[in-house]
Amino acid sequence: MNQKEVILKNLENLGRKILDQIEKKENPSIEVPIRALSNVKFDLKSKKLMLGESKAKRYFLNIGHVRKFVQTFGIAALSKELIEIGKTVSLREAFYILKRTLPNSKINLVDEQEESNEAIEDLELIVNALREQLHFNANKLGSVAGNMVIEDRGDLIDLTKLGSGGWSVPSNVENITFKKVKAKFVIYLEKAAEWERLHEDRVWEKLNCIIISSQGQATRGIRRFLQRINSELGLPIYALVDFDPWGIYIYSVLKYGSIGLAHISERLAIPEIKFLGLTADDIEKYDLKKHLIKFKEVDFSRLNQITNYEWFKNNKEWQRQFKIMKEWQAKAELEALSSRGITFISDKYLPEKIKNQDFLD
Amino acid sequence: MNQKEVILKNLENLGRKILDQIEKKENPSIEVPIRALSNVKFDLKSKKLMLGESKAKRYFLNIGHVRKFVQTFGIAALSKELIEIGKTVSLREAFYILKRTLPNSKINLVDEQEESNEAIEDLELIVNALREQLHFNANKLGSVAGNMVIEDRGDLIDLTKLGSGGWSVPSNVENITFKKVKAKFVIYLEKAAEWERLHEDRVWEKLNCIIISSQGQATRGIRRFLQRINSELGLPIYALVDFDPWGIYIYSVLKYGSIGLAHISERLAIPEIKFLGLTADDIEKYDLKKHLIKFKEVDFSRLNQITNYEWFKNNKEWQRQFKIMKEWQAKAELEALSSRGITFISDKYLPEKIKNQDFLD
Repeated sequence: MNQKEVILKNLENLGRKILDQIEKKENPSIEVPIRALSNVKFDLKSKKLMLGESKAKRYFLNIGHVRKFVQTFGIAALSKELIEIGKTVSLREAFYILKRTLPNSKINLVDEQEESNEAIEDLELIVNALREQLHFNANKLGSVAGNMVIEDRGDLIDLTKLGSGGWSVPSNVENITFKKVKAKFVIYLEKAAEWERLHEDRVWEKLNCIIISSQGQATRGIRRFLQRINSELGLPIYALVDFDPWGIYIYSVLKYGSIGLAHISERLAIPEIKFLGLTADDIEKYDLKKHLIKFKEVDFSRLNQITNYEWFKNNKEWQRQFKIMKEWQAKAELEALSSRGITFISDKYLPEKIKNQDFLD
Repeated sequence: MNQKEVILKNLENLGRKILDQIEKKENPSIEVPIRALSNVKFDLKSKKLMLGESKAKRYFLNIGHVRKFVQTFGIAALSKELIEIGKTVSLREAFYILKRTLPNSKINLVDEQEESNEAIEDLELIVNALREQLHFNANKLGSVAGNMVIEDRGDLIDLTKLGSGGWSVPSNVENITFKKVKAKFVIYLEKAAEWERLHEDRVWEKLNCIIISSQGQATRGIRRFLQRINSELGLPIYALVDFDPWGIYIYSVLKYGSIGLAHISERLAIPEIKFLGLTADDIEKYDLKKHLIKFKEVDFSRLNQITNYEWFKNNKEWQRQFKIMKEWQAKAELEALSSRGITFISDKYLPEKIKNQDFLD
């Protein structure tokens, strides 16, 4: 069975189980893993934030359960239809499709998008499939260019031949096939403008790599794309973000997963990703201290948070970085490298860092 | 002379004029059009928000002027260098490049990005060129697909063959050449997720058009791209946004320009763009009233603002829409069309609206 058939089978089994219970005159029920902070733990072996073992049983004939119970089946039915007709919908569209009034009542199946979103997340766990594999998409964002040819919806797309814009990364990257891959690694950037810097300087050609950007926090599409490149092609991924608690948080999420999406860390987290920069040492070495930006209150509290993350707490190198940031009471942006020259980041900074494998883990 | 040569000439003339003044022992000065609300007017003839005639003279030997004066020349020198070496920088990079300490002083040429941004906007007016033509870029955002082949940086890009992602629109679209254009019109969407809906349903193929999205307010790159398609290829542009004051504001900016960028309305505004939807009539016709979303305080004040815009004030059809919105005290999203069917927007709503040329102006 291919992936699609497995998921359809799982959806069908879900319905069949309930039918069986009804025929046996039992109270229909499903088991759902608990998605809450109390059930999220950092798995030392896989080095990922993972969901624990706790599960909750949800009954149809229970006034406190019935609404969520029915919503889950509403979403499951929609998912099955979408997979069968080969269509996807956004989370917002799914909400409107489910927001229908139940017959002979004034009750809507869902009233808020929160409800349909939660039903989708539950379904991810129940049938062991990513939201995207269930044909629900979030927003798309981000661009990619580099020495790789991919296939998507029957089109062969050469990521070296897309002008100044690059390929626009879709929200759902499940159906992309990697065809010809010459690139040896991937640089992920949190800033679209810096991506344009590297792309204009043809860094992907000079260093034989792939460059991918989002804007701010990486979308699920970008995370999953990076994860697939890493796990299926074995290419190293390097994160290029600001020297500030927010940039490091983006790196942390890419590497270890996040609490909110702990239930799918298996498919999103990239434990092997490395931190390419900006580091405190880069700032010293390239004489960027005059471009430090004073911390605000929110920066201090964010820094305190990440300093105490389980995976950073015993990491000497990261603790050293955090200590320096605290001493400086300041952060620095990637763009500060421009003060050394228009293409300094592409001609000197990146080639040197990558040649020396000067990464944080 | 080609465009690049004209701009280089203008930059050179700017410097030469100052040199002349110095040689004549005059106080060096430049004239800069005033970019302030007081000097912005709605031009009834061109139907664009335009800058008025007011200008200010800025002197080098004037303690209140000298800082801005020197910043303008700092940016002009950087722009000349960038054009000559064929590189572009982001606004943030330009800030760091200019943020250098002046010799024998503790004074930085710029301290805040606000300063370099303003110098760039002044330069746009002084040398009569878009920021992008001066090689300064903002952030990139948005995707495009459809029946058109373009050329960019030597690559031929067929916008029908880019899988589910489409082409990622660059921040700077000045150097794109339109090659083969089969499409008959363009649909602009404010929502990336709805773009994916239309793209998956291959609306651009069925209706022979181009689909372009940003996320929220359109970037300069997207606006200029639409404006170029409209003015150079003569294709109509249709805006597909939510029925709410924010969606209509996006339409208004695309059509008439904005106060902040009034000085370049000539190159950004698209007076011929039409409003494709969502309208109050669509909501009635397609039975979407149950999906209306109650107004919040901010929605009311935004609605009052746009109701009083000069270009909407005497437009009966728009005033009718605003009146209904006020009566309903509610707005509606494009995604509400999903409640009528997964692909309803692509199979029914768009074909009908476009066939009947059912637009607002």
